[in-house]
Amino acid sequence: MRYTVPMRAVDIIMKKRAGGELSAGEIRFLISGYVAGIIPDYQVSAWAMAVFFQGMTPDETAALTEAMLHSGEVMDLGGAPGPFVDKHSTGGVGDKTSLILAPLAASLGINVPMMSGRALGHTGGTLDKLDSIPGYRTMLSAGEFKQILLSCGFAMTGQTKEIVPADRLLYALRDVTGTVESIPLITASILSKKAAEGAQALVMDVKYGSGAFMKNPEDAEKLAVSLVNTAGAMGKKTTALLTCMDEPLGNMVGNFLEVEESLDCLEGKGPCDLMEVTLELAARMAVLGGKAHNAAEGRALCEKALAGGKPWQLFLANVKSQGGDPQKLLSLRRNYRSDYKAEICAEKGGYISRIDAWKVGLAGVGLGVGRNKTEDAVSPTAGIQFHRKRPDLVKQGDPIMSVWGRDARSLQAALPLLTEAVEYSQTAPPQRKLILKEIC
Amino acid sequence: MRYTVPMRAVDIIMKKRAGGELSAGEIRFLISGYVAGIIPDYQVSAWAMAVFFQGMTPDETAALTEAMLHSGEVMDLGGAPGPFVDKHSTGGVGDKTSLILAPLAASLGINVPMMSGRALGHTGGTLDKLDSIPGYRTMLSAGEFKQILLSCGFAMTGQTKEIVPADRLLYALRDVTGTVESIPLITASILSKKAAEGAQALVMDVKYGSGAFMKNPEDAEKLAVSLVNTAGAMGKKTTALLTCMDEPLGNMVGNFLEVEESLDCLEGKGPCDLMEVTLELAARMAVLGGKAHNAAEGRALCEKALAGGKPWQLFLANVKSQGGDPQKLLSLRRNYRSDYKAEICAEKGGYISRIDAWKVGLAGVGLGVGRNKTEDAVSPTAGIQFHRKRPDLVKQGDPIMSVWGRDARSLQAALPLLTEAVEYSQTAPPQRKLILKEIC
Repeated sequence: MRYTVPMRAVDIIMKKRAGGELSAGEIRFLISGYVAGIIPDYQVSAWAMAVFFQGMTPDETAALTEAMLHSGEVMDLGGAPGPFVDKHSTGGVGDKTSLILAPLAASLGINVPMMSGRALGHTGGTLDKLDSIPGYRTMLSAGEFKQILLSCGFAMTGQTKEIVPADRLLYALRDVTGTVESIPLITASILSKKAAEGAQALVMDVKYGSGAFMKNPEDAEKLAVSLVNTAGAMGKKTTALLTCMDEPLGNMVGNFLEVEESLDCLEGKGPCDLMEVTLELAARMAVLGGKAHNAAEGRALCEKALAGGKPWQLFLANVKSQGGDPQKLLSLRRNYRSDYKAEICAEKGGYISRIDAWKVGLAGVGLGVGRNKTEDAVSPTAGIQFHRKRPDLVKQGDPIMSVWGRDARSLQAALPLLTEAVEYSQTAPPQRKLILKEIC
Repeated sequence: MRYTVPMRAVDIIMKKRAGGELSAGEIRFLISGYVAGIIPDYQVSAWAMAVFFQGMTPDETAALTEAMLHSGEVMDLGGAPGPFVDKHSTGGVGDKTSLILAPLAASLGINVPMMSGRALGHTGGTLDKLDSIPGYRTMLSAGEFKQILLSCGFAMTGQTKEIVPADRLLYALRDVTGTVESIPLITASILSKKAAEGAQALVMDVKYGSGAFMKNPEDAEKLAVSLVNTAGAMGKKTTALLTCMDEPLGNMVGNFLEVEESLDCLEGKGPCDLMEVTLELAARMAVLGGKAHNAAEGRALCEKALAGGKPWQLFLANVKSQGGDPQKLLSLRRNYRSDYKAEICAEKGGYISRIDAWKVGLAGVGLGVGRNKTEDAVSPTAGIQFHRKRPDLVKQGDPIMSVWGRDARSLQAALPLLTEAVEYSQTAPPQRKLILKEIC
């Protein structure tokens, strides 16, 4: 005797709870039902918690990504020549590599269709940085996005409501139900959005360390492997770099401050750590875009392009296309700062052994760089500039950083945490490895 | 620097997810917030799934039980002499022991404040059985419940809306989110209701086997230990028996059919398996109620009481107090049956080695004994009567059972499953142990 039973969310939850592998049909049923409002939040959150404990196979993760991708609109770049290659970072403090490598890759003839996010937790957001450029529009229509992408070689926009609605719903639910830290769920969230924007290949910057969401390299590697395998199963060639996020990247943390530092980098005057990570990521984009045979060749191409000044011109052209005024932007350099400023000086002499990215990120949220709640507004002019970093040798009283707060209260509140973020040692700290591993 | 942060449900979920022990305050925050509608379903279901995977300590389970208990009204039996002892079964097929042991314990001078449930899944419900007695009222007010309890020595009612609202909400949520099978959550659900009805001591019939919710004795023992320890922590002395539910208990499965079989038992004419379980449970009630020094003494008291006829009289007195007509009830015996009847006969000769309780229970739901959905109505007159059971020797064609369905269609649909439920062997099946273990 055989009974035909309709699919039920509760059975899918219990199957996952028991460690079973869900079929693509079951996953589609769950995601499409959730987006349609037929399957309620409380079943999806219980399922997400079961996924947290039981994980997902590569096939399940790919099926989830596909189901989420097709919950909304997919960018149609058909007819455009390409290649289309994008980069995604899992989030860090002072990480403005997107602003540099997008015009850099574009200067090599690679189209970069970049859909970015806002500040999340202690980390900054590319959209918030771009919004600090007066006039710059980060919410483009699909038509504008495509037109700017093809004319400048890159375009930068936020996710519209029509793109991957499943991710917006699921992410908000995971955030309040303690189900964020699940590798398959993170993988599907990232890749569904990247697939929707039309990228053919991807470079992933998977960060680990105090300022990253993954605190240790082992977890970051698991995520990187999951991203590379799942993207591969979806036909998108992907390379991931595991990079260290124990200290802020570069010397600036803030919205306009980071735009400024990106301009410095495009002029060839960027700090070493930031340039190293940016060039290594851009080198992989060059390889994936068919412009170089290997990473070393890609990096050489990128260095040459930077020296030639084309990335700088493309950045300014993009600013103009997206509604900003390049001349006004350049005139604001070194001037566009909050009035509420303080200096933090060395409490003692010695080597700076670390400036803790986690504490800097948290302090940044308080200053107005990021947000505590989704509805909070960020400040364009708040932030931190480091004058000294690891492994500099300092004397007591030497200036370590300048700090700008959105107001006097937030500035005062952030200073103890920033002071605490600076760690000293009496011997020179060992060399730091910025890029731990490549996974492809 | 210290920050004072308000309690948040998401942090409680993540603490449990990581295997941490929740404080009584955190558990109260979650449960009271849920009942008040401040903490949403989707956080509670994610928390319940985390509890499924990480478990709870005895202290946490007791705190959860207390928090649930105090989410509503608690029966006030103050001033009444007592002792108040109740029995709870984890649910089975053909399990009508409550209907027999309540008047039996009452005849020994023990008050039995019994709040029961309805049919759930493949198992029957005491309230549905009582409802099959014409006129019998199973929804008593608190005042009626107390008055009947003190006059008849026992009263039987359903849970009012005011009693443990947290359990009603949480149970409905667990049912659709795959979080039913969690020992601490089951423990708190059972004990919060039993504590709310005013019992001072409890006997637990924890069933295992195909017709029970716990399929194996190991899981049943874990639940029994959790129940005994948690009740103990709340000051309620509790004894649990692990009893076998591989086959239906007694010869009748149905609503009025089981009332009838209970009357047979109260007349001293009950089937051996049912009487054995009933007497062993009642013996523990006698001990907990201070009427016997040990189970053997308690059992002897119970057997003597049954022979004396007082339990029979108390049952009929209770029927009258709760709105039924004892004479009408007695006149319906052997007559009150659905018109849709079939017989199932032995397919071959041999010993009956088992009649699978799970299949009988499922078939019973189809016949109208139980319900598929909460809103379904049950039939008073549907059910199954076994003429032969394990370890009877039968010839091909011997009648095994009579079956009554709520209608022709449901009757026909149930027959293949019931036929399949009968297992045969060519050698005499070994002796079955009905009561595996006592935990106190």
